[in-house]
Amino acid sequence: MEGELVIVGDEVLDGRVLNTNAHYLAGRLAALGLGLTRITTVGDRVAELADLLGLAASRSAFVLVTGGLGPTEDDLTTATAASAFARPLALQAELLQHIEAVCRDRGQAVGELEKLAWLPHGAKPLHPQSNCCGFFINHGRCLVVFLPGVPSEVEELFDAHVAPLLMQAQPGRPGFLQRRLKLFGLGESQAAARIKDIWLGHGEVTFGSYPVFPEVHLSLTARGEDAAELTARLDRIEAEIRARLGEFLFGRDEETMEGLLGQALRARGLRLAVAESCTGGQVAQRLTSVPGASDYFVEGLVTYANEAKERLLGVPRRILEAHGAVSAETAEAMARGLLERSVVDLALSVTGIAGPSGGSSAKPVGTVFFGLAGLGGGRVEQRLFRGDRARIQGQAAACGLNLLRGFLLERTGG
Amino acid sequence: MEGELVIVGDEVLDGRVLNTNAHYLAGRLAALGLGLTRITTVGDRVAELADLLGLAASRSAFVLVTGGLGPTEDDLTTATAASAFARPLALQAELLQHIEAVCRDRGQAVGELEKLAWLPHGAKPLHPQSNCCGFFINHGRCLVVFLPGVPSEVEELFDAHVAPLLMQAQPGRPGFLQRRLKLFGLGESQAAARIKDIWLGHGEVTFGSYPVFPEVHLSLTARGEDAAELTARLDRIEAEIRARLGEFLFGRDEETMEGLLGQALRARGLRLAVAESCTGGQVAQRLTSVPGASDYFVEGLVTYANEAKERLLGVPRRILEAHGAVSAETAEAMARGLLERSVVDLALSVTGIAGPSGGSSAKPVGTVFFGLAGLGGGRVEQRLFRGDRARIQGQAAACGLNLLRGFLLERTGG
Repeated sequence: MEGELVIVGDEVLDGRVLNTNAHYLAGRLAALGLGLTRITTVGDRVAELADLLGLAASRSAFVLVTGGLGPTEDDLTTATAASAFARPLALQAELLQHIEAVCRDRGQAVGELEKLAWLPHGAKPLHPQSNCCGFFINHGRCLVVFLPGVPSEVEELFDAHVAPLLMQAQPGRPGFLQRRLKLFGLGESQAAARIKDIWLGHGEVTFGSYPVFPEVHLSLTARGEDAAELTARLDRIEAEIRARLGEFLFGRDEETMEGLLGQALRARGLRLAVAESCTGGQVAQRLTSVPGASDYFVEGLVTYANEAKERLLGVPRRILEAHGAVSAETAEAMARGLLERSVVDLALSVTGIAGPSGGSSAKPVGTVFFGLAGLGGGRVEQRLFRGDRARIQGQAAACGLNLLRGFLLERTGG
Repeated sequence: MEGELVIVGDEVLDGRVLNTNAHYLAGRLAALGLGLTRITTVGDRVAELADLLGLAASRSAFVLVTGGLGPTEDDLTTATAASAFARPLALQAELLQHIEAVCRDRGQAVGELEKLAWLPHGAKPLHPQSNCCGFFINHGRCLVVFLPGVPSEVEELFDAHVAPLLMQAQPGRPGFLQRRLKLFGLGESQAAARIKDIWLGHGEVTFGSYPVFPEVHLSLTARGEDAAELTARLDRIEAEIRARLGEFLFGRDEETMEGLLGQALRARGLRLAVAESCTGGQVAQRLTSVPGASDYFVEGLVTYANEAKERLLGVPRRILEAHGAVSAETAEAMARGLLERSVVDLALSVTGIAGPSGGSSAKPVGTVFFGLAGLGGGRVEQRLFRGDRARIQGQAAACGLNLLRGFLLERTGG
């Protein structure tokens, strides 16, 4: 079953807005095993949009349209759909009641919001009790779905309402279950090569893979009626992939490295500090992107100058002079020094060469050392990352978070 | 003069790649005063692409096509263009010589790279001495430009070769000059409202505005033959905008906040340290994203816990208890403590409430205090930012960088 996307909005055509809806929807559709033949962006012009909607519905099994559903004068998509499909606008009583109730609560008049309750004849709202507009029409053999333009609303409506509709529209494929597995430390093609046989051995499940820098995400979609059976099927495949790629697989679905690490620390009542050099604060920044990180994150020291490594972490000058700031010895001394001087249970250090200059043949640009200390143990890890400065920093920060979690689980028997 | 974009690539249709080329090109075209009526993404399928190219060239003044120009089997755009425009492929001797020379230097055989020297009859390479392929055809009254899919190559070729071609194709508009002014601290619509009269008073210059979180960018495009006159014209308009929005205008073209601050510090031989709480390392991370930041950046302390503010910065406990961690007093003590304990000339502190919880009616979520100390002076600034946790952190980090630069220039008479 193949379809197309229609993106409506002058703000995309003149470059004011980066259209992330198309990317989101394309990725989700691919994960559902549904292909797109075309994505077309047009402006807020009635004639062009009407032509395009008619053409798209005549040639595709489904059409998803985003944008132009709002209450103002320049939101023309609903009226254009009515004209393109020769379905005059009709008042949807349930929608109007909901809009009136919302306006009463806010103490405002319905006014131009009434427009949102008028849909093309035969259209059904995606979610009548939501403030997000959005509706669908079965036109001939085509399912035409209209979504708003705001990315968060598109994502919410797609996952909750549109994906099930599309699955129902596929004969014999009424239910489905999706899972996303998140990898770090392996390229997309390396990951694909290592699990190709698992992929090929499960024809009943659709696989997809997506680089989401610095991670690679695998998506698995199983179809069938029985939810418990679908879960069991995905569990089996996840177990196979985990047995093969376990060291690279750090999470699934909405889990993030910083979120999982935070959960593990909170569950054990442990506290953390980090000392960064080449990542320049990115490890701390990711840790503190999680609400409530103050429960376990005490401090991050960006000891960029050698003098700061000595003063703040107590790294002996002789180590810096003998081995250099980018060395296993310095990484170890940074982590041990941080653990001794701070009031935490666990310390991470990161020191490396982010480039573009500063590399040598023994330690090329991209060389990074990580020190781990605490919970009665400690060790140093070395990695070599590729890419420009930003990519090296991004990979090193993710690697640091990942090593921390591995070390924590190892030391606490998690 | 209106045109359209055609994006070729299965990797966009299945969501593997976010298509940033369309956004980049749309923004640049708008800045040149050129409108788009449509952006169409299609897969690597010959028949569909040929139909689309023919249709687009028949209805538009220009068509920009990206993707599918590489040497491998699945790069079909050049051959499809030959067929769509009935212009058989012809060998371009100059291109072949260049490819042969490059291959000789690399010690590799020409092999399938020869394909890159075959263009549709009458096509001209955009830049025969470059490894980036790319060519154009004047088909009827339409200028059809073919670009590769790699964003860095698209950007380079567009700015250097395609923009001038498009300007030439507009009768009476042979030359142009563009400038981008970067604002922080003012929303897009607020900025537009404040300079609307300047905008309207210079009909000979095309204005555009683009939110690039957390900044707003204004683009000015002047057209004419005389380069010195164009520069003088943009200088005059920039001066008018600067007089109106000076406090919000921090840079232009490729300048960044962290780059400008680094230049100013390096030029004065001054050194910097930062102490962050709610921004969690993002100020340090932005500073260290600049190559060579070690010339002026000594350290960043992410003192997330109050205990860390006391131990690392010497913030008195009575200040934390009397005024709270998010207060002017704490921000001041953090900056002063950092300046005293570190070996720097200038210190910044950031402490605030990033949310989602932790706000009060006196200090709502988004309240942030900044402390500046050094160069014989010091002060505290308070701001209120809106949005979710990530947006508050992003705005606070940018604001900290901006305040640092202002303070530095003020104290050093820059």
